[in-house]
Amino acid sequence: MTAVTTVSGIVTLLSDFGLADSYVASMKGVLLTRAPGLVLVDMTHLVPRFDIVSGAYVLSSAAPAFPRGTVHLAVVDPGVGSSRPAVAVRTPTAWFVGPDNGLLTLAAGRAIVEVVDITTVPGWGGERSATFHGRDVFAPAAAHIALGGQLEALGPIRAGGRLAPLELPPLETRPGRVVGKVVHVDGFGNAITNIPRDALPTDPARAVVEAGGVILRGLVTCYADVPAGAPCALVGSGGLLEVAVSQGDASAALGLERGATVVCRDADAP
Amino acid sequence: MTAVTTVSGIVTLLSDFGLADSYVASMKGVLLTRAPGLVLVDMTHLVPRFDIVSGAYVLSSAAPAFPRGTVHLAVVDPGVGSSRPAVAVRTPTAWFVGPDNGLLTLAAGRAIVEVVDITTVPGWGGERSATFHGRDVFAPAAAHIALGGQLEALGPIRAGGRLAPLELPPLETRPGRVVGKVVHVDGFGNAITNIPRDALPTDPARAVVEAGGVILRGLVTCYADVPAGAPCALVGSGGLLEVAVSQGDASAALGLERGATVVCRDADAP
Amino acid sequence: MTAVTTVSGIVTLLSDFGLADSYVASMKGVLLTRAPGLVLVDMTHLVPRFDIVSGAYVLSSAAPAFPRGTVHLAVVDPGVGSSRPAVAVRTPTAWFVGPDNGLLTLAAGRAIVEVVDITTVPGWGGERSATFHGRDVFAPAAAHIALGGQLEALGPIRAGGRLAPLELPPLETRPGRVVGKVVHVDGFGNAITNIPRDALPTDPARAVVEAGGVILRGLVTCYADVPAGAPCALVGSGGLLEVAVSQGDASAALGLERGATVVCRDADAP
Repeated sequence: MTAVTTVSGIVTLLSDFGLADSYVASMKGVLLTRAPGLVLVDMTHLVPRFDIVSGAYVLSSAAPAFPRGTVHLAVVDPGVGSSRPAVAVRTPTAWFVGPDNGLLTLAAGRAIVEVVDITTVPGWGGERSATFHGRDVFAPAAAHIALGGQLEALGPIRAGGRLAPLELPPLETRPGRVVGKVVHVDGFGNAITNIPRDALPTDPARAVVEAGGVILRGLVTCYADVPAGAPCALVGSGGLLEVAVSQGDASAALGLERGATVVCRDADAP
Repeated sequence: MTAVTTVSGIVTLLSDFGLADSYVASMKGVLLTRAPGLVLVDMTHLVPRFDIVSGAYVLSSAAPAFPRGTVHLAVVDPGVGSSRPAVAVRTPTAWFVGPDNGLLTLAAGRAIVEVVDITTVPGWGGERSATFHGRDVFAPAAAHIALGGQLEALGPIRAGGRLAPLELPPLETRPGRVVGKVVHVDGFGNAITNIPRDALPTDPARAVVEAGGVILRGLVTCYADVPAGAPCALVGSGGLLEVAVSQGDASAALGLERGATVVCRDADAP
Repeated sequence: MTAVTTVSGIVTLLSDFGLADSYVASMKGVLLTRAPGLVLVDMTHLVPRFDIVSGAYVLSSAAPAFPRGTVHLAVVDPGVGSSRPAVAVRTPTAWFVGPDNGLLTLAAGRAIVEVVDITTVPGWGGERSATFHGRDVFAPAAAHIALGGQLEALGPIRAGGRLAPLELPPLETRPGRVVGKVVHVDGFGNAITNIPRDALPTDPARAVVEAGGVILRGLVTCYADVPAGAPCALVGSGGLLEVAVSQGDASAALGLERGATVVCRDADAP
C-alpha cells in the first residue's frame, strides 16, 4: 500500500488533559521548540478522563477533514508509565502518534501501512518524566515526523503492523434488525451509536428506531425536519446512526447515556 | 461605499459547538485543506446552545479588534438544514460568513457593502451533509474568500443588501430615563445590557442605575473604584452599560440573568 | 546576566477570562493587527477567577517548554484599573508581560534581567479602556516586544529589578519533616503542593506522606505503580510533591482542596 511521504506542517492535538492546566501548553511548547513553524490545531482536550472510546470516536471523526500529510497526536492514557507501548502509525494519508491502547485504532486501524514502537526520540535531551509522556515522548515524536523524519528512527517496525483493538460494544444483527449502543454523547446531547449506515434498512422511510423508550418511524435527513423539541433519528455527518432532539438535548430528554441500547429494524421486522 | 478587497489571511471561528467534539476541528481541517497557510483564531465555541443574541454580541465585540481583511466564520444555527439562507457579507473592513438568522447582523449590519446568498462553493467536492453546514458549506465558503476569491462566485448578490434582523429587546426611553435588559452575562458574571453609552446621562456622576434590587448612584470608570464585593455600574469596553461586582459575580449576587430589567435615569428623573 | 535578544515570533496567552467571551479573541486581534505573522498559543484561560497563585503555577509550569525568545502574556488581574503597576520583564530566555501582582513572579522571579514599568505603548492609538488592560495595554506591549522592539520604549526601567512577591503559603520545616499546602488542583484532581523535591527525604522509599487522612509510605515514580483507585505520592513533572489517585481524582477522594495541609517526613521522624 502506498503511504503519505510529504508532511503538511500541521500537527493536531487530542487529549483528556482539560483546558485548565499547563499540560497542553507544555506539549505545544515542545512541538514548537523542536519544529518551529508548525501549525498546531486542537482537536479537543475535553475527552472524558480516561475514556478511550470517546477519544477514538472524536479522533476518527475529525482526522479525515485535515490535509494529507498531517500528524495527529493523541493522548488518552490511563496506563501512562506502565508497559503499554507508545506507537507511531503511518496510513496512506496521515500519521498518528499516541499510546497503543485502542485510541488510534478507529482512525488508523483500517489503513495501517506501518506501526513503529517508539523507543527513542532522536535529539531529545529533556528529562523523561514518568508521568507525562505527552510532553516527553509523544510531542517530540510528533515533531520528528512533522519535520519529515523517518518513522524507523523512533524505534522498531512492528511485525504484522497491527494496533491494539479498541474495545467497542459489538453490534447484534439479525435479518432486518440491528442492536447497537450509544458510544458517544456530543455537546448538543446527540446520542451517537455504533450502528453504521450500511447496517440500516436501505429505504430510510422503512427504518424504525427504538431508543430511550420512544419509537421513531423513518429516518429524517436533518434535525429541522421535525418540530423543535421532537426526537428524531438520522445518519449523522460521521456516517453513524444518531438519535437527536431538534433544538434540544436527546441524551437528557430520553435518558440516552453512553452505553444505552438502540435498536433499528425494518418496518416489517419484529 | 468602499469595501475591503485584500485578505489578511486570518479566519476567526465562532460557534455553539462546544469544545468537546470533533465539529470545530473538522471545520479547521476543511479550512486548512482548502487554504493552506491560513491563520485560524477561535473567537469562542461556547456560545450558549442556539443563543443567537449571545453569539451576535460576542462576534460584534471581538471582530473590530482584528486586522482589516479578516474573514469571520460564525455558526449558531438552530435552523441548520432548513430553508434559512446561508450568506457571505462584505463590509468596509471584513467579511462575515454564516446563517442569515441575525447572528451576523450586530457585527456587520450597519456597514454592509454586499450580501451574497451562498448556493455553491467552487471546487468543493465533499459530501454535503444535511446536518453539518459548518463543515460542508460555511468553512469552504470562508476558505474561498480568505484565498481572495470573488464573493459573487458563491451565489447571487442579494438585492437591497440587508440581513435578517437580530431579535433584540428594544429600549424604552423617556426623557432622563432608559429601560433596557441584560443581553449577555459574561464569564465574570458581569451583566451586559442593551443600553449604549449615548443613551446614558452625559454626566456619569448623575446616572442612577437600578438593577437586581439595588440602586447604584453614579457610574464608576473601573471595577476597582469600589471595594471588593461591592456592586457598581459602568460603561464596559464594548460601549454598553454593564452591572458588575468588584472581584465578584454580579449575575449571581444580584440575580441578574439574561433578560433581567435594568433602568438608568438621571439623578433628577423619577 | 545575559538576556534573550532574539524573538521567537511566539506569544503565549494566559488569563482568567474563560473561553465563552470576546476577551481572549480581542487580545488576539490586537496582537495580530500590530504584529501580523505572530504564532499565538493559549496557555490557559481557565485560571480560577482572580486566583493569582494558580495562574502563577500554570505559567511557571508551561513557560519552560517554549522556544527561547517567546513572549508570555499573562492577565489575572483583580486590581485592573487601580494603581497596581503593569510590567514587562526580561529573563535570560523569555519575556513576560502582565500585572505586577505576583502572577509573573514564580515563572520569572529567579532570573530577572530587567523590569520595565509600562507607561506607554508606541504607536498604540486605540481607546484605553479602564476595564480591559489585556486588550488595551498588555497585548500591544507584548506585540511590541514580539516584533523585536526595545523594552525601554514601554516605560522606565525599574531600579533593583524586582517584582512584587507571590503570596505563597510558606513551608514549615524541621529536621526530617516538612509541612506544606496544596497550591493547585489540576484537571485530573491531582493535588500539587508547594513542597519541592529538594525538601523531601533523599531516599524516596523512606518518605512518608500524610494528606487527607491517609498515610502513604514511599514515593512512587508513576501513577501506574499503584492499582487503579489507590492513592499515591510522587514528584510530578514540575518538580513538586503531589498526591494522586491512580486513574482517579485525589482531590475528591481525599478532600484535598487548595490550601489543604500535606506533611512529608522521613520514615524515622515523628
